[in-house]
Amino acid sequence: MKPIFCLISTIAILSAGLARAQERPNDAKRAVQKTEGQPASTNVAGAAYPKIHGDLSVSFRLKAPDAKKVTLQLGKAHEMSRDQDGVWTVTAAPQVPGFHYYWFVLDGAIVSDPASETFFGWSRPCSGIEIPSRDEDFYEFADVPHGELRRRPYFAKTTGEWRQVFVYTPPNYDANAVTRYPVLYLQHGMGEDERGWGVQGRVNLIMDRLIAAKKARPMIIVMEKGYARKPGEPAFGLPRAAAGGARPGEPRRPFATLEELFINDLIPMIDANYRTLTDRENRAMAGLSMGGMQTFAITLNNLDKFAYIGGFSGTGGGFDGAPFDAKTAHGGVMADSSAFNQKVKLVWIGIGTAEDPRFQRAVKGYRDVLEKAGIKTVYYESPGTDHEWQTWRRCLKEFAPLLFQDPPK
Amino acid sequence: MKPIFCLISTIAILSAGLARAQERPNDAKRAVQKTEGQPASTNVAGAAYPKIHGDLSVSFRLKAPDAKKVTLQLGKAHEMSRDQDGVWTVTAAPQVPGFHYYWFVLDGAIVSDPASETFFGWSRPCSGIEIPSRDEDFYEFADVPHGELRRRPYFAKTTGEWRQVFVYTPPNYDANAVTRYPVLYLQHGMGEDERGWGVQGRVNLIMDRLIAAKKARPMIIVMEKGYARKPGEPAFGLPRAAAGGARPGEPRRPFATLEELFINDLIPMIDANYRTLTDRENRAMAGLSMGGMQTFAITLNNLDKFAYIGGFSGTGGGFDGAPFDAKTAHGGVMADSSAFNQKVKLVWIGIGTAEDPRFQRAVKGYRDVLEKAGIKTVYYESPGTDHEWQTWRRCLKEFAPLLFQDPPK
Repeated sequence: MKPIFCLISTIAILSAGLARAQERPNDAKRAVQKTEGQPASTNVAGAAYPKIHGDLSVSFRLKAPDAKKVTLQLGKAHEMSRDQDGVWTVTAAPQVPGFHYYWFVLDGAIVSDPASETFFGWSRPCSGIEIPSRDEDFYEFADVPHGELRRRPYFAKTTGEWRQVFVYTPPNYDANAVTRYPVLYLQHGMGEDERGWGVQGRVNLIMDRLIAAKKARPMIIVMEKGYARKPGEPAFGLPRAAAGGARPGEPRRPFATLEELFINDLIPMIDANYRTLTDRENRAMAGLSMGGMQTFAITLNNLDKFAYIGGFSGTGGGFDGAPFDAKTAHGGVMADSSAFNQKVKLVWIGIGTAEDPRFQRAVKGYRDVLEKAGIKTVYYESPGTDHEWQTWRRCLKEFAPLLFQDPPK
Repeated sequence: MKPIFCLISTIAILSAGLARAQERPNDAKRAVQKTEGQPASTNVAGAAYPKIHGDLSVSFRLKAPDAKKVTLQLGKAHEMSRDQDGVWTVTAAPQVPGFHYYWFVLDGAIVSDPASETFFGWSRPCSGIEIPSRDEDFYEFADVPHGELRRRPYFAKTTGEWRQVFVYTPPNYDANAVTRYPVLYLQHGMGEDERGWGVQGRVNLIMDRLIAAKKARPMIIVMEKGYARKPGEPAFGLPRAAAGGARPGEPRRPFATLEELFINDLIPMIDANYRTLTDRENRAMAGLSMGGMQTFAITLNNLDKFAYIGGFSGTGGGFDGAPFDAKTAHGGVMADSSAFNQKVKLVWIGIGTAEDPRFQRAVKGYRDVLEKAGIKTVYYESPGTDHEWQTWRRCLKEFAPLLFQDPPK
């Protein structure tokens, strides 16, 4: 349970892990239809490449007439070939459906594909490709009533800065001006920011469908940035963010500054500006990867404010598999499992079956310790998906219906 | 008045024009303070470069160890130098305050700067840098009540596709659930999309301040994408968009498909989902560059729906300076100037004094023809700014206070 240190090694695992699982497993391969292919939906308008073929292999192109070497980084490195016009091309093996980040390495420089939209990931704007799924459409546009994704600036006293938050309001929020709604605080992962769930995650499309199907209660969802430091605290950096922005040698609880910002700035601002239900039984928090670690750190230290907890490929145990005792961890809030189960309505843990074995061991291991200590959990595995957005879209689809159901459905 | 053809030459003019005017004129130069410099606010978190110096010169860096040649394109080309670690650097001359697009050319490939946020411009995600202004803060964060920028999906029957619209709702829109508001439809320029005004333009920050200062009426602002084609119409392309998406050889009014989408899909959707005032005297349209051309094309053909018209560096005359007769143009709606002046509450035209002379001649020339024909206009020049967002931010600041004032203030 040393999230500060395990964050560092996580980057290396991510790079290696995505390569393995992003390619579609053999048993799931469809008939190869390499005829024409279709431009990816993530391409900029008019761009013919990246082109997705019938078997979900993908062809990439980059014009770089004077380059010596160009490599596509899509999970793993794919060396590209130059034609006589200076256009570099490669076709990557069939990909798992969902969203994958990618980029080119062009004579040693990491660059985005000018033919693709960029998405904030890997701590920079990064190309991304949406591989269509034949089996799932729960995150696609549908003819159902739509909520809104609202961007709002606010000043955070904790950090002394203007920040921007995204707020999903459910369909008909404006039409019915008296109804109040429960709130889910939903965090992105390391290297991403408050835009992640709205763009890569398609949170609004997923929720619009769940609400239309009456599978989830209409709720407000708040998406903030998982980085916070006070004036004078060390410069931005993920391990330091995990350390709560502390100065070297000054121990603080993990994500302590972010926690302070949530409790003293963000939640009061949301409750003042939106028609929220403000009691703990109407407030949930969840997050993916680092956002899951933040969720356990913040909720378990503030159980007077949260009753529902979700970790998507991220838990209160970090990723390092260190010894963990449910009786003493998290300030001892789980020591009395029966009281904890009474108080906390949901501890939900999910992971993709194609994630790095270290991640799977850490997440499952944390869940096993909780269960052995008598803490009730709900556990979900996303079949065939890696430490990527398809896992987390599915996690949200499974998690949201369980929220704010007391007694549970 | 052949916007279809003039659009094509516009791209060439833009490239040349931005180079000249983007550098700060000598008389405005401040004392050179090349000490440390500050990271641009548009950098990704933690990136030290691009670094803006005290005299508003800017240093750029790109790591590309194996590159043969790297050029910075910021208005004009700036050749970069390689150090022994494979890092390429250049310092560009002092820049005019405001937002400038830029990119690198790396061994022949056009690439974004991984250290900067990207912005959709030039028909692709493009790096951008915000040069701070010592004289103006009307587009900066301020401690005033904030509106929201809302993203909403909707299905457009005209084009048979899901589209996304951004809607600015003024401060306290939710708190006062009975007030209805006038609506401004506000269009981006060529190569940009519906995100432009919210991100590069900072429309919400400008309006929040104007409304707090009681300089503008609280209003709803709708930002859509300036490209529309029906199923079966030719593939995406700006000249074709201007042609209304017509098949070759099939003449249509400029922007005819976009007009159809506005009238039959967008406006009804907005009026159904937001608390709008729906009469023509409470509906305005404005746009920048191509968006200005769209504005004149759509409003002048639908004066039963619009009473306020704004062209920011773009008019109903295009940019080609072709002969233009106010009596016969635009279907003859201006033939009776007194009736036109009675009906249309505002024809507002603005341009930057550092824009390409051809643009200035075209915009001023259009305005002169209108005035000579007895059509009342309001004309504004943005001092020292080019065909760029600083011009258009200022245009909005000048234009918005004149809207929905009948009788005028």
